[in-house]
Amino acid sequence: MRIPSDRPPQGGLRAAIHEIVYGVDTPAGRAFDVLLLLAILLSVAVVMLESVPAINERHGAALRIAEWAFTLLFTVEYAVRLWTVAHVRVYALSFFGIVDLIAILPAYLSVLAPGTQSLLVIRALRLLRVFRVLKLVRHMREAYGLLAALQAARPRIVVFLGGVLTAAVVFGAVMYLVEGDEAGFTSIPTSIYWAVVTMTTVGYGDIAPRTPLGQFLALALMILGYAVIAVPTGIVSAELTRAGRPARSARVCPSCAQKKHDPDADFCKSCGAEL
Amino acid sequence: MRIPSDRPPQGGLRAAIHEIVYGVDTPAGRAFDVLLLLAILLSVAVVMLESVPAINERHGAALRIAEWAFTLLFTVEYAVRLWTVAHVRVYALSFFGIVDLIAILPAYLSVLAPGTQSLLVIRALRLLRVFRVLKLVRHMREAYGLLAALQAARPRIVVFLGGVLTAAVVFGAVMYLVEGDEAGFTSIPTSIYWAVVTMTTVGYGDIAPRTPLGQFLALALMILGYAVIAVPTGIVSAELTRAGRPARSARVCPSCAQKKHDPDADFCKSCGAEL
Amino acid sequence: MRIPSDRPPQGGLRAAIHEIVYGVDTPAGRAFDVLLLLAILLSVAVVMLESVPAINERHGAALRIAEWAFTLLFTVEYAVRLWTVAHVRVYALSFFGIVDLIAILPAYLSVLAPGTQSLLVIRALRLLRVFRVLKLVRHMREAYGLLAALQAARPRIVVFLGGVLTAAVVFGAVMYLVEGDEAGFTSIPTSIYWAVVTMTTVGYGDIAPRTPLGQFLALALMILGYAVIAVPTGIVSAELTRAGRPARSARVCPSCAQKKHDPDADFCKSCGAEL
Amino acid sequence: MRIPSDRPPQGGLRAAIHEIVYGVDTPAGRAFDVLLLLAILLSVAVVMLESVPAINERHGAALRIAEWAFTLLFTVEYAVRLWTVAHVRVYALSFFGIVDLIAILPAYLSVLAPGTQSLLVIRALRLLRVFRVLKLVRHMREAYGLLAALQAARPRIVVFLGGVLTAAVVFGAVMYLVEGDEAGFTSIPTSIYWAVVTMTTVGYGDIAPRTPLGQFLALALMILGYAVIAVPTGIVSAELTRAGRPARSARVCPSCAQKKHDPDADFCKSCGAEL
Repeated sequence: MRIPSDRPPQGGLRAAIHEIVYGVDTPAGRAFDVLLLLAILLSVAVVMLESVPAINERHGAALRIAEWAFTLLFTVEYAVRLWTVAHVRVYALSFFGIVDLIAILPAYLSVLAPGTQSLLVIRALRLLRVFRVLKLVRHMREAYGLLAALQAARPRIVVFLGGVLTAAVVFGAVMYLVEGDEAGFTSIPTSIYWAVVTMTTVGYGDIAPRTPLGQFLALALMILGYAVIAVPTGIVSAELTRAGRPARSARVCPSCAQKKHDPDADFCKSCGAEL
Repeated sequence: MRIPSDRPPQGGLRAAIHEIVYGVDTPAGRAFDVLLLLAILLSVAVVMLESVPAINERHGAALRIAEWAFTLLFTVEYAVRLWTVAHVRVYALSFFGIVDLIAILPAYLSVLAPGTQSLLVIRALRLLRVFRVLKLVRHMREAYGLLAALQAARPRIVVFLGGVLTAAVVFGAVMYLVEGDEAGFTSIPTSIYWAVVTMTTVGYGDIAPRTPLGQFLALALMILGYAVIAVPTGIVSAELTRAGRPARSARVCPSCAQKKHDPDADFCKSCGAEL
Repeated sequence: MRIPSDRPPQGGLRAAIHEIVYGVDTPAGRAFDVLLLLAILLSVAVVMLESVPAINERHGAALRIAEWAFTLLFTVEYAVRLWTVAHVRVYALSFFGIVDLIAILPAYLSVLAPGTQSLLVIRALRLLRVFRVLKLVRHMREAYGLLAALQAARPRIVVFLGGVLTAAVVFGAVMYLVEGDEAGFTSIPTSIYWAVVTMTTVGYGDIAPRTPLGQFLALALMILGYAVIAVPTGIVSAELTRAGRPARSARVCPSCAQKKHDPDADFCKSCGAEL
Repeated sequence: MRIPSDRPPQGGLRAAIHEIVYGVDTPAGRAFDVLLLLAILLSVAVVMLESVPAINERHGAALRIAEWAFTLLFTVEYAVRLWTVAHVRVYALSFFGIVDLIAILPAYLSVLAPGTQSLLVIRALRLLRVFRVLKLVRHMREAYGLLAALQAARPRIVVFLGGVLTAAVVFGAVMYLVEGDEAGFTSIPTSIYWAVVTMTTVGYGDIAPRTPLGQFLALALMILGYAVIAVPTGIVSAELTRAGRPARSARVCPSCAQKKHDPDADFCKSCGAEL
């Protein structure tokens, strides 16, 4: 998730614009990023408001104009990024290069495919602009610490989720037979949906067991979910606690062989000999 | 959140009353605080009971009298606090100074704006008196330990919540297109509301997916929520576990002023001088 | 929660029975405890089955007989406990002495107060027999480890719950004004009930916000609840992690002043001098 | 959960097939396992699709054929496993031996018991094939780490779940009396079901308290559940954090065989001999 090219290309204007668009160290670069984030948030808000029937009726035209204005703005920005970056291919294929493209494509695709029916599909594509918000992550160093901890815990979490899904499939299948259509368990996939809704403690209640046996099985599933909710939390806790420990350098004192010196120690804490 | 002025002003009666109102070390000061907390709890109970239709019909008049009695009591208390404190401006602008004012203002504002319609608004202002309960926090030292741990974990929690909200926006927009009006996904904001309700495992069930694709996406969101619920818990756990570790002794090296020596260090790890 | 008197009274039969009733070290004592637990579980099951209308219609008489049989059994047991224990008053006023009495009293009280109406009340008293199950805790040492960790974390959990309840009161009062009667927010207490249902992520859905502002406030409350669910978990995690750490003895080596020796160390691990 | 026999039997073809079926070190053995997992996933998908009425109507015949094909495939696989393994009895009675058998039995049993009524029962037996998915666990080493942590925490979790269930029984019985039939608390078992649904924060909402007293008791139960959800999480967190700690070096004292020396120890802490 590194920005692909931090070296500005050698060329007056290009280098200056690159500094503004990609850089975060100059006041201009920082102002550009803040304004861009504001524009992204506003464009997301416009898409959201357009979907509310009451607002769309009254301000529909204005919202559509604002949406196209943002589309043009983001298109220019994307073009400038492509122009000023040193290695076009690396940027275009990077995570944020693809996100930047996806954020403008839907609007143009909606022109090529008009019609009453397809309008719904167009709205669907348009909504992907929301991904632009993900850019927010770019400048926050904290996220990397979290990602590292999650990455370290990934194999354990994968095994854990596999176990949860297996339990959901087994319980879903059994509940489908025990409860049947009346209580909403109309098929095994629907019952699995219910099992996950129950294990994750979401519990919509749109499907709920009615027979004593079904309720008993639901209890077993809940208590199982209650017990296993501890597992991913425990994994991440342990990972973060471990990550937070200052690693004692493995330096050994040459005169007294004392180990476990702090990384910033210059003299042995036991005998005072220089390290 | 420190009480702004602990130095009593030089003056017989004022100093004595200051000791009672602000102090917690004398029996009188402690009794005052306990009685005040009781009065706050009772006044909150009065506001709550007044909102219950059945009780308001029968005991409405008595409750309104009790409410005004508490308002007068708290007004006198606020005046005494302003009179006895050394630096009026510091207290008036402190967190608790503002809370103390907000707790009495609504009642007086309700007199200035009579009428059938505005009565509802008055009730709204009145309810802010509930904030007075926050005074409870003042005397509990434990809260500071918790606050310190939460403060240390704040940047990570902010990044985490940003990620959760982004996921809610993306999933909400997609579900709006997949499910449509019938299942309750009437607009993108409503769908985002559903997404947060699902991710936080609250799961009211007032809105719930009905199509197989919608249910599948809901499952993905639930399992995502199940996996990420581990993150804030892990962060706080790690922070609290770290906080509980024996702090490095505060011994300072007499020759180079280096701090943070291990409890078992005999020589300064920076300059080698004997500790 | 210790059994008050472990010293058997000096007297042949009484001492022998005491050994069986209170002791857990002899085969007879262990068999008695296992049988008692079985009887308790069965008596709880009888009370539960009696409440199911379909079962009560068919097997009501048999269940009532079984219930009286268990009542007599537990009465005899209580009398034997009183007879064989060394200090009657200590046992009678201990936690389990009171639980043992409460487990038999309701049945006898139901005889003194006959009548159609009072029958319901009798059932209520009867149900307290369930407490007898708490005896299960007595022999499990693990519970003490948990209790110690919870006790150490108690002040923090109290502060935390106070904060949660304050937030519930404030949000409940605001939602009462924002949403009103239609969405189910009929009074402030009911709204507080909704707020706790939401913060604890239970989310029944019997009361749910309908206005955009109400839904927005509900989202804020959910995310607040999502963030704070980390706190009690973190507190207990930290407490248990700390409890699991072997405390290094504070013994200092007389020849090299090295600290942090293991509790079982006889010689200094740095210089080999005898400790 | 070890595969019972890793030693291939001495015999050309049998040993070669054993290597493919049981081994994971050769390319052939690995390919076999991947194909088997795919077949298991597909067969589970077939059972799931068959339960969806709309799909069963159109593609019912094809799905039944696919199901029988998978049954035959798994039967052949089971026979090969029995033939090539060294100790038939050990395999047949091992966890996976039984799972392998259960995964094929239901299909054959459905032939022996035809009829309209029994068809439903046959479906029930059929669904147990889902257990085959459990085979997925076999090759993941991560699972063992998790299992070890869970096993170490098991006694504490058992005590904890016992406490949760006791609380559910007590609250369920009290709510049955407080709320009654109207709100859905039709019997004590149903009320206990509600109590567990509430404590685990699932909260379907199919049963919800309506009286003020019932709502107050529900709040108490929720906050209890909120507080205790910390316990299993804390237990597993502590267990995993402990597991991650650098193990005391396995150095053994040459003179007294004392183990568990610190990594920085130079002399044996028991006898003072140099390490």
